[in-house]
Amino acid sequence: MKILKSTPKNDNFHMPAEFEPHYGCIMIWPERSDSWQYGGYAARKAFVEIACAISQSESVTVCASFAQYNNARQLLPSHIRVVEMSSDDAWARDVAPTFVINDWGKLRGINWAFNAWGGLVDGLYFPWDKDNAMANKLCDLYQADVYDASDFVLEGGAIHVDGCGTAMVTKNCLLSKGRNPQMTQAQIEKKLYQYLNVSKVLWLPCGIYNDETNEHIDNICAFVKPGHVVLAWTDNQDDPQYDMCLQCFNYLQEQTDVLGNPIKVHKLPLPEPVYISDNECEGLDNMNFMPTRTPNERLAASYVNFYIANDAIIMPGFSNPKCDDSLNLSYKKSDREAKKILENLFPTRKIIQVYTRDILIGGGNIHCITQQIPMFE
Amino acid sequence: MKILKSTPKNDNFHMPAEFEPHYGCIMIWPERSDSWQYGGYAARKAFVEIACAISQSESVTVCASFAQYNNARQLLPSHIRVVEMSSDDAWARDVAPTFVINDWGKLRGINWAFNAWGGLVDGLYFPWDKDNAMANKLCDLYQADVYDASDFVLEGGAIHVDGCGTAMVTKNCLLSKGRNPQMTQAQIEKKLYQYLNVSKVLWLPCGIYNDETNEHIDNICAFVKPGHVVLAWTDNQDDPQYDMCLQCFNYLQEQTDVLGNPIKVHKLPLPEPVYISDNECEGLDNMNFMPTRTPNERLAASYVNFYIANDAIIMPGFSNPKCDDSLNLSYKKSDREAKKILENLFPTRKIIQVYTRDILIGGGNIHCITQQIPMFE
Repeated sequence: MKILKSTPKNDNFHMPAEFEPHYGCIMIWPERSDSWQYGGYAARKAFVEIACAISQSESVTVCASFAQYNNARQLLPSHIRVVEMSSDDAWARDVAPTFVINDWGKLRGINWAFNAWGGLVDGLYFPWDKDNAMANKLCDLYQADVYDASDFVLEGGAIHVDGCGTAMVTKNCLLSKGRNPQMTQAQIEKKLYQYLNVSKVLWLPCGIYNDETNEHIDNICAFVKPGHVVLAWTDNQDDPQYDMCLQCFNYLQEQTDVLGNPIKVHKLPLPEPVYISDNECEGLDNMNFMPTRTPNERLAASYVNFYIANDAIIMPGFSNPKCDDSLNLSYKKSDREAKKILENLFPTRKIIQVYTRDILIGGGNIHCITQQIPMFE
Repeated sequence: MKILKSTPKNDNFHMPAEFEPHYGCIMIWPERSDSWQYGGYAARKAFVEIACAISQSESVTVCASFAQYNNARQLLPSHIRVVEMSSDDAWARDVAPTFVINDWGKLRGINWAFNAWGGLVDGLYFPWDKDNAMANKLCDLYQADVYDASDFVLEGGAIHVDGCGTAMVTKNCLLSKGRNPQMTQAQIEKKLYQYLNVSKVLWLPCGIYNDETNEHIDNICAFVKPGHVVLAWTDNQDDPQYDMCLQCFNYLQEQTDVLGNPIKVHKLPLPEPVYISDNECEGLDNMNFMPTRTPNERLAASYVNFYIANDAIIMPGFSNPKCDDSLNLSYKKSDREAKKILENLFPTRKIIQVYTRDILIGGGNIHCITQQIPMFE
């Protein structure tokens, strides 16, 4: 694996859209007890279900620590590869490389700096050295050369592209104080031009309420095909999320993509707000003598946090199959409606819904724990 | 990766000879400070030189711990892959899987039990759990299913095959008290039949004097082609090694291979005995409050401990390029002679000699730190 000081743009490499063909998918086995309640047992079940769903149409590799390797190997089916790799947590989207390809299908990676979503300003854990080392390690594993963007803090969940030259980010995330405070918006945009090889960046103002990544794009809005996005939505004007969605909607209404086409916005209604319970909080270890979550904290639940696999969409569901209270009935309804919307938007793909409350408690969802590897030669 | 309860023989898989075509080679980065003197700096240089030599004709993957990953990545050239994998030491021959193939070139591995060359009886370190986990992990990495032979203690360095159905081992090693004391020689031979898919086992009586592996075959004798072996040799009757070599020679003279052909023995003269110096001992950390080596301890130096790469033989040399005393002149002479013998025995391969005293101090040589992956489809 060579470390490249050039840029993808310079070498005619670009980041393909997630809906383009994949070689496979990278995931990381959840382990840390201040992220995953009650030893991660429930989260692991959801991770396994997601890995299995993705592996129906692409090759899945799961990274596990030495301590958890055997457990991961035991709980995952044999056709899913498990490799030993140290990490600080399980967010493959944010710590695995962003992959780029060229016209001949050659694969390379980008190693962004990772600082746990804000470093010492408002990052979520310390240290993050194992996470930060993963992009290069994964490139080496796949024998892909890697572009060194380690002077620029970014996560995979902070960017979406349409594969045609348009990227989409949120201002709240990319202009956050904990990432690249020394850079102007124009300088950051230039970095995205150089590394993703796009010519236009859509700057949505914000993301999902209480999203501790400083509001990653991948929880609020995603491309479904060139010129078409799904946007998380609520009609409840009393919800602080309402204004956030409306700002994004209004912004997108005025924008065109890189080709000059207007952006068609498909609204994807959010579930009723999801709050962590006392019992769930109790199952989380403290971090630095402080609770990582407090009872009734609102979690950043959104159906937009889905993964586009070759033949399927793996999407979150919030209704607990084992529960039947009225709130759960509301989740059942919104789960069903969100699934229907994605079925219409992705007519060639099977929509697989996985109950992911136990991943949401960790701070993200299906898109956050997966990173696609585009098809390569 | 599936764990198979069948045997290679049952499934028509067999272990090919080392001189058959390889896909690549596995090595492990040296790290532990009670094996590798002065922080392993000199050993690592030799490992890098060996990896580079092998990589001229096959793909090399080096396993490194999290702690040493960056250092390994920095010191190895970019075309050599580095993967994170925990180990207890750096003996890939003994802890990586023994690979088998079938007639269609399908690859599988064998996971023998590993107990650090003798477990609690006369093993060399404790614990050995990381080493013992590696064979399965490496099979998973290469997406090869693995035969579970974890009820049988064996190391890759304890076996050689001619690829035609003959295996070669030493009695001192395979019948040692620290491996499978509950099994008779006939039972052990049957295991080798089943897993290597051979029909004949040659039981040399012993190996190299003071070889702490209980005298692995790979330090005393190796197949160079079917019906032909090189045997470590000395003409010095005052050396305890003399009787050991003679016993092996006499044994082989009376044997035929699986096809009924006599074994042609090519003598490969040993270097003058190599002893560890005071200074080298001082650079080794203690283990359990005891020195791992004592000054003037004789090391198990042998030219037989070479690796057969696709286009090259990577063989040990004992003459220090930076030194010019009379003993070193003797090593220069024996290095040259051994190289010439291998040149004649492997006329299609380039013979590359590497100065490996710093590996020998760790307890083995080039064959011990490498494991070939046969060519597969």
